[in-house]
Amino acid sequence: MGNRKAAEIMSEAQSGKRMLRALAGEVLDRPPFWFMRQAGRYLPEYRATRAHAGDFLSLCYNPELAVEVTLQPIRRYHMDAAILFSDILVIPDAMGQALAYKEGEGPQLEPVRSAKDLDRLETGRITEHLQPVFETLKGLRKALPADVTLIGFAGAPWTVATYMVEGQGSRDFANAKSWAFTDEAGFARLINMLVDATTEYLLAQIDAGAEVIQIFDTWAGALSETEFEKWCIAPVARIVSNLRAKHPDIPVIGFPRGAGAGYASFAAKTGVNAVSLDTSVPLEWARENVQSDNVQTSCAVQGNLDPLLVVAGGEGMLREARRILETLGKGPFVFNLGHGFVPQTPPEHVEELSELIRNWG
Amino acid sequence: MGNRKAAEIMSEAQSGKRMLRALAGEVLDRPPFWFMRQAGRYLPEYRATRAHAGDFLSLCYNPELAVEVTLQPIRRYHMDAAILFSDILVIPDAMGQALAYKEGEGPQLEPVRSAKDLDRLETGRITEHLQPVFETLKGLRKALPADVTLIGFAGAPWTVATYMVEGQGSRDFANAKSWAFTDEAGFARLINMLVDATTEYLLAQIDAGAEVIQIFDTWAGALSETEFEKWCIAPVARIVSNLRAKHPDIPVIGFPRGAGAGYASFAAKTGVNAVSLDTSVPLEWARENVQSDNVQTSCAVQGNLDPLLVVAGGEGMLREARRILETLGKGPFVFNLGHGFVPQTPPEHVEELSELIRNWG
Repeated sequence: MGNRKAAEIMSEAQSGKRMLRALAGEVLDRPPFWFMRQAGRYLPEYRATRAHAGDFLSLCYNPELAVEVTLQPIRRYHMDAAILFSDILVIPDAMGQALAYKEGEGPQLEPVRSAKDLDRLETGRITEHLQPVFETLKGLRKALPADVTLIGFAGAPWTVATYMVEGQGSRDFANAKSWAFTDEAGFARLINMLVDATTEYLLAQIDAGAEVIQIFDTWAGALSETEFEKWCIAPVARIVSNLRAKHPDIPVIGFPRGAGAGYASFAAKTGVNAVSLDTSVPLEWARENVQSDNVQTSCAVQGNLDPLLVVAGGEGMLREARRILETLGKGPFVFNLGHGFVPQTPPEHVEELSELIRNWG
Repeated sequence: MGNRKAAEIMSEAQSGKRMLRALAGEVLDRPPFWFMRQAGRYLPEYRATRAHAGDFLSLCYNPELAVEVTLQPIRRYHMDAAILFSDILVIPDAMGQALAYKEGEGPQLEPVRSAKDLDRLETGRITEHLQPVFETLKGLRKALPADVTLIGFAGAPWTVATYMVEGQGSRDFANAKSWAFTDEAGFARLINMLVDATTEYLLAQIDAGAEVIQIFDTWAGALSETEFEKWCIAPVARIVSNLRAKHPDIPVIGFPRGAGAGYASFAAKTGVNAVSLDTSVPLEWARENVQSDNVQTSCAVQGNLDPLLVVAGGEGMLREARRILETLGKGPFVFNLGHGFVPQTPPEHVEELSELIRNWG
């Protein structure tokens, strides 16, 4: 559903990478696949590299090691896409908001909760600060096999804002929402800063070699319909339009996790080429309300196997994977999980699943 | 959408309590209202009573104090319904699973993760153990104003099982899901035990005076479509049918929180009279896909104001409340929140909101 006709993009991509063909609206006998958090703690070689790097942010900012961990799952499973190894919180980090990852506790930030706090954020050194990320992307474009697509990514403004305001993970986002409700202009200023910073960051990712962009709105499901329009759909639509102004062909995948029936408006209004579906989304409903095969307004879908099924493995996992392939494979489709792998995932189950998809159709 | 024709129930309820009329499918000029967690920490009189009671479970099991805290919000705001003050984890407690509430940390249980663990659960003393809850209901029926409906409740089997298996709150329900995926028969045995225990518990609540039952499936949103059918819809449908076998007229509200597009199948398949909508559910979508005005198959909806809007209060809160009243008020409808009040809610904002609804239409 880009500004540009899908037919045009498709004709270019026709004989190209499987991932790009699906995102251009093509229906493939064997859809492309990759897995959220495919580089991560479930892989022994990741844990070994991570032990060298020190803390999590140091790994994100070390191009050599970040390239290595991005490539690790590709070597094992030959996915159709590799996603940059990084984190959505590098944006607040680049804005000078103090950020630390404590082992087993998730991120901790010095909370930003007022106009005065916003004044302390720096927006002039995003690209400079994130240079190691662009180095990683350049390294990956050289190192990746010719048929593997490189995905860059960022967090959506709402989700990044929740961490910046709460200072950590949250269940009800009481501080972020209260700010948005009692001082909408102030909160909108934070969101606008994030739209601009994210645009700048993603444009630089594309310049460094990212062929597809995914925007993660992990906490979209906490928003009411009115807030969802205001803080999820509108900022994501602006980022997509900003990217297209410089790179009319760049495919964008949106992931408004937990949006429920709201996935349909997200697909219709943001201008993304594809929507990533969380595990809870019913397949036939997504086929009818999100996925579009119309060549003018094609919208691919991506998803949505329960990552805990890959912990279990075996016939239960394969049966659900087949059901997803059969149902969503009728339209433009990228096989993926509904959420990232958990650390206790046995690598041999990932192989079993990858083999099913590679041999599909 | 009960076994019994809504028209029949309606004719009985016509001139009765507003809450029962809405649940029977009647469209009211001024819909009934109550709020999830309306008795709770945001009220100073609750905090005072709680200080007397000691820990949270002691308050749940003290009929005199539990009646008192249930009545407190009714005295202030004159809602159309009072919900029993209790907790969804009294069921595992009645089964002999060690349970403790640590201040500020949520519940802690000795996890149940295997067939052997299940053998240690006692199912023969549910009604005996929960006698104080039934005393509370009896006391409430005597104390409540004639136009206020008494709601009893329980957790749905899936949600209660997540606490029993994880031993605490969880983000990904890795243990519960892994059990369900690797030993479906074993996990089904736990779910079946919970269907039976919950049926027994709710029947005794109805005998003690509960006029409506609400079933909370707080973690339904973590389930894939296939798991949702198996572990949310099917067990809830069995409980509803068990209740109707003895009490054909008992209205039941289901709350599969986070079910997204799955709300539609939940409404169609469980036999509930009403579905409670979480904050994320788009209103027009719910109007078209969940709420039913057909007198034969009426399904009321309940919801879904963002509780954080009540922390903010003022015109923003009132505007959203009006939008909900206008849209969902076109069919059978109970005004409520999309999730419970948070402790920092100012009581005067609750009054402002209650006044809007009391004067509606």
